Amino acid sequence: MTSSSDGSTNLLPLVKFDSNGMVPVIAQQHDTLETLMMAWMNEKAIKATLSTGQVHYWSRSREALWRKGETSGQTQDLIDMRLDCDGDTLLLLVDQKGVACHTGRRTCFFRALRDGEIVETEPVITPPDELYGQ
Amino acid sequence: MTSSSDGSTNLLPLVKFDSNGMVPVIAQQHDTLETLMMAWMNEKAIKATLSTGQVHYWSRSREALWRKGETSGQTQDLIDMRLDCDGDTLLLLVDQKGVACHTGRRTCFFRALRDGEIVETEPVITPPDELYGQ
Repeated sequence: MTSSSDGSTNLLPLVKFDSNGMVPVIAQQHDTLETLMMAWMNEKAIKATLSTGQVHYWSRSREALWRKGETSGQTQDLIDMRLDCDGDTLLLLVDQKGVACHTGRRTCFFRALRDGEIVETEPVITPPDELYGQ
Repeated sequence: MTSSSDGSTNLLPLVKFDSNGMVPVIAQQHDTLETLMMAWMNEKAIKATLSTGQVHYWSRSREALWRKGETSGQTQDLIDMRLDCDGDTLLLLVDQKGVACHTGRRTCFFRALRDGEIVETEPVITPPDELYGQ
């Protein structure tokens, strides 16, 4: 099997994209193992991520390639890319600079169900107006 | 706001299901923080999970409610249910009995891209014929 230097030619044939050409991607902080966020990639985003080492997603709403942190500065360095048994989900181990969530929290998963009520479990570390200059 | 004892009436209005009524769900082992798998839930699966404390998914291929481990015995006890900022992904902290993957590995994410090649990073702990009695 041939391989490009970044492995995309080995990985891409194993990825089962959905009918829109998308695959869900979980980003996990490589050392603390916090689950940071879930977003989507298409083939272009996978290639951009592997060739640069900077995580890129595909914005389904904007229909555009999106380098994580391109506006906020809160980038993700790729540490490891993993594929699941069915080939239909990617898991990225990343090094998240700052906060992953657009609300300014470290992780997007900051709402939890506790004793039947929704509670917020994570503080805002960097307010959105600092992230986005609004 | 009223709440049912299991919190489903508080959670469900915050979940943004896709056009098929599905939401992606990440299962993470609560203590080791391994990312185990990704699957899908609909409203029925969320309600079954919250009311029983045993994780249920919706099988999109079989179009059926599926209690994780109902055939293999490799069940998931729900420890914590979390929702992301956009309401379109759930993160479950679970206690996974045995192996999460139908291949007999602890996690479904056992293929990684290393130096441009796909390598398997997790051993088979329980062979599928033991899990499924084939």
